[in-house]
Amino acid sequence: MSEVVSISQQSAKEYRAAMIVIGDEILSGRTQDTNSHWIAGQLVRHGIRLIESRTIPDDRETIIDTVNELREKVDYVFTTGGIGPTHDDITAECIAEAFGVEIEQNSDAYNILLDYYGKAELTEARLKMAMIPVGADLIENPVSGAPGFNIENVYTFAGVPQIMQAMFEGVVHKLEAGLPILTSTVNCTLPESVIAGDIAALQSSFPDAQIGSYPSYRNGALGVALVIRATDRIVLESASNELINLIRNLGDEPSAPVYQGGDY
Amino acid sequence: MSEVVSISQQSAKEYRAAMIVIGDEILSGRTQDTNSHWIAGQLVRHGIRLIESRTIPDDRETIIDTVNELREKVDYVFTTGGIGPTHDDITAECIAEAFGVEIEQNSDAYNILLDYYGKAELTEARLKMAMIPVGADLIENPVSGAPGFNIENVYTFAGVPQIMQAMFEGVVHKLEAGLPILTSTVNCTLPESVIAGDIAALQSSFPDAQIGSYPSYRNGALGVALVIRATDRIVLESASNELINLIRNLGDEPSAPVYQGGDY
Repeated sequence: MSEVVSISQQSAKEYRAAMIVIGDEILSGRTQDTNSHWIAGQLVRHGIRLIESRTIPDDRETIIDTVNELREKVDYVFTTGGIGPTHDDITAECIAEAFGVEIEQNSDAYNILLDYYGKAELTEARLKMAMIPVGADLIENPVSGAPGFNIENVYTFAGVPQIMQAMFEGVVHKLEAGLPILTSTVNCTLPESVIAGDIAALQSSFPDAQIGSYPSYRNGALGVALVIRATDRIVLESASNELINLIRNLGDEPSAPVYQGGDY
Repeated sequence: MSEVVSISQQSAKEYRAAMIVIGDEILSGRTQDTNSHWIAGQLVRHGIRLIESRTIPDDRETIIDTVNELREKVDYVFTTGGIGPTHDDITAECIAEAFGVEIEQNSDAYNILLDYYGKAELTEARLKMAMIPVGADLIENPVSGAPGFNIENVYTFAGVPQIMQAMFEGVVHKLEAGLPILTSTVNCTLPESVIAGDIAALQSSFPDAQIGSYPSYRNGALGVALVIRATDRIVLESASNELINLIRNLGDEPSAPVYQGGDY
């Protein structure tokens, strides 16, 4: 019960985030980006709404323009990729330019790299990873040393998923967030088009919930997952119960609702 | 040999594309988008460069603004998601509005749905999928009837991967395209930072190739995949051979190069 009270006392402000996935390897079809999906799931749990994710190439002007456009638009921008030691790793210098600050060898980052690699192995290429925009705070990298960084509302992570996730987990609890988004998921075997009218009516009855309908196509049969999202538990459960009734009225037996988020 | 000649006779113009992934389910972390990755790979093979992919919510203004921004910027825009029969499927009406045209019941789309469902099952919700922007051409859906559509340089596909892929395969051969992008991939176990300087020098020697360095982290060891992209086979193979030599000079034995694209 105390947890429910503490959640209801959190700010009702909605916090919004955008992601920038940086890397030619994603746009060339070489690498399937999984970072957006992972971060999206984490943000929902933490009460931050991801409103956009953009994948862009390792191109200086594009990175600068995208960072500047999105950091004005949302509470938090998360970038992944392009902070390694090679010639195509240009994220740090682009973010410095986006903020109109210099990039310099950060003494804390230098010491982290010195500690991780040792003096003999701290090559020129590796020292590139100590170049951080002036005024940024470092983000710890418990996996492979070289840190990410945060400047104002922009958080810059590595692209390698294991490293990105460790960095993200080190900062997410510091972010101001709104009410966690709660979800209820119900599956049924009715085609989407059969339930569409009733779902639209249900959505109208519950303006404080978002009801999504997600068709799937498996073994030649179309089915549908119905997902209700809300920040209020009573709204969520009422809508979910009505949804189950309407599916039964259409002659199908839905799956038991799966509730997620918050205290569920 | 004749194929090599035919490829070299293709236009040297670069054709550029952008993707718009439409759907709250992606941004809420419910669904991992795989459509961008699949389309990215197809486009590379067809000589079209994907320069951006944006994931946006089922929000009217956002869809309209994004379509209008990107269709001015690139040769082709591909959208996935939001063309089903439910209340959150608003892609078709948004694209009509982006182009400043009406949306109407398309008689060809109606006949396709009538043929697919039969008169008795052609419900009001299903008829929504016959609502197509005026002036658009239909894109065949061999999986589940309801068509996609194309208006000017914007191609609108379903979000369900199997349906999207079947739609895409029906249109991609009609798209004007440039030279296919060829790639060579070489893996080595050297850390990225050890090869960074030599790779930067190699990139300078081959301005007509793009050399990417992609670290991976497996079983506690960092390795790296080096990917060279070029449209000219001789450039690609020369750069790839020099890359192999430089890795050997650093004391590692690289994997044999894997060549892909075009006639490889």
